[in-house]
Amino acid sequence: MTLGLPKKVTIIEVGPRDGLQNEKSFVPTEVKKEFIKSLKNAGLTEVELTSFVSPKWVPQMGDAAEIVADCLDGDTRDIVLAPNRKGIDRVVMTDCKAVAVFVGVSNTFNKKNINKTTLESMAELKPIIGELKEKGYFVRACISTAFYCPYEGEVKPEDAVELCRQFVEAGADELSVADTIGMAAPHESYELFSRLKTEFPNTLLTAHFHDTRKMALTNIFAALQAGVDRFDTSAGGLGGCPFAPGAAGNAATEDVVYMLERIGIETNVDLEKLMQAVKIVQPHLSRPIESTYFRLNAETVK
Amino acid sequence: MTLGLPKKVTIIEVGPRDGLQNEKSFVPTEVKKEFIKSLKNAGLTEVELTSFVSPKWVPQMGDAAEIVADCLDGDTRDIVLAPNRKGIDRVVMTDCKAVAVFVGVSNTFNKKNINKTTLESMAELKPIIGELKEKGYFVRACISTAFYCPYEGEVKPEDAVELCRQFVEAGADELSVADTIGMAAPHESYELFSRLKTEFPNTLLTAHFHDTRKMALTNIFAALQAGVDRFDTSAGGLGGCPFAPGAAGNAATEDVVYMLERIGIETNVDLEKLMQAVKIVQPHLSRPIESTYFRLNAETVK
Repeated sequence: MTLGLPKKVTIIEVGPRDGLQNEKSFVPTEVKKEFIKSLKNAGLTEVELTSFVSPKWVPQMGDAAEIVADCLDGDTRDIVLAPNRKGIDRVVMTDCKAVAVFVGVSNTFNKKNINKTTLESMAELKPIIGELKEKGYFVRACISTAFYCPYEGEVKPEDAVELCRQFVEAGADELSVADTIGMAAPHESYELFSRLKTEFPNTLLTAHFHDTRKMALTNIFAALQAGVDRFDTSAGGLGGCPFAPGAAGNAATEDVVYMLERIGIETNVDLEKLMQAVKIVQPHLSRPIESTYFRLNAETVK
Repeated sequence: MTLGLPKKVTIIEVGPRDGLQNEKSFVPTEVKKEFIKSLKNAGLTEVELTSFVSPKWVPQMGDAAEIVADCLDGDTRDIVLAPNRKGIDRVVMTDCKAVAVFVGVSNTFNKKNINKTTLESMAELKPIIGELKEKGYFVRACISTAFYCPYEGEVKPEDAVELCRQFVEAGADELSVADTIGMAAPHESYELFSRLKTEFPNTLLTAHFHDTRKMALTNIFAALQAGVDRFDTSAGGLGGCPFAPGAAGNAATEDVVYMLERIGIETNVDLEKLMQAVKIVQPHLSRPIESTYFRLNAETVK
């Protein structure tokens, strides 16, 4: 018996968006730009640049237009997140051609997050996705609370699968399925992703884990065995979720890349250069970098 | 396809020995006793109590005889470690009926650790194991640096298997195979333990991981898939290795138990009581408890 692991994995870097949006202190726009450019320089080919959310609710993302104007290039898939029609209207003013939208499987979570039920969110998003696809956009559907909800507890896999189906039918190119509060256990990762792989063989499937209970790497290892070869991670383990109490950072890009490369799975990411990227943003953060790889190697990086 | 995980796992608690032996400040004997008793009270059925090493080299273990005299009972497998003939002679003066001996697969490591080559160690240990078995002892063989050595680098799986074979032939009841410096990647865990399971189907096989590079839980998950159902762990993640530069603590019992129970694998360990045990020893340690479960739950434990 072998473990049936993929030979190559794509890392979707979410630090500049999912990571920084949870930072209390505003990270200067110039620092963000340098951070993003150095992430790309480290070999990351798909990057969530920023989010077109209301600057009133998330002031950290108030410089979204400027970030996009300066950081877009032809070599990487540069993704911006937009929560609603208003955000999408701002995205289409830019040259960005990849948009992430998001919905929580849990109704309560969705309601607390964007003040809509899951049903209301989907009713708004379906026509938007249709329009975006007509205009040639890449659409990434982020499914949050796919395993557990901080308010409702366990989420039924059926409900996660059903929400994914709606996105696929609406035309989404990618499903990014998240354990938003870092609570999934590895057998749950394996089971849900096995099912999604079977149900949606023609859609890019990405797993998104938070490390709250230290199981992110194990969940990734389980998802690899389910055939997943795309993972959202965040340089430095930045992140958390303002609407998910107790959620720790995303799985750290460097810890994930280190493990994958050690297994012999190609990631295209240069760990030394990635550490340089983390060092650019580190002085501007309100908390220490907690990734293991950074702790062990930061001192040796110039 | 399913993951093929066991239904039940035995945790061998090594905190009082492998954990405390690396503590700089002497933990009072009474505290150790209370720690051990509370670990047993939490449901741990196999515990490494202490080590009959030279008190000159490891003063922390100078109270070994007193610990054994007070902590032995009929309900748990109480194990003491002895590095050589001298240590064994002290063990047989006690009522303890389970002995752990150890050898490093890596020659350099063994030499730096106990000033003998691997070959010299085995030449001394083989007749000792024979004698112990004749007297009815349970013999646990601890194989260190089974994956990587801090001095020699990669260790050949063949060499680890061969050393295990010598122990099995000498009569050992258990092989505890260790990633001493916390460097193994999960595919290596899976491969070596699959092989050992096949080679030695009639010997208890235990996996021992350190969390230096954050892969301990993933390595355990991989070993479970290889059929391993016994794991050495240390309450509070205590430990490291004085002769293995950079080695972090053992996989923390609470993090491992939490993951296993979440997967639905029975461990017999009560996490709340385990946290009480960690709180007994915590004030006497020179460093903070780093386990994730403790950080998340310590405040709610009385």
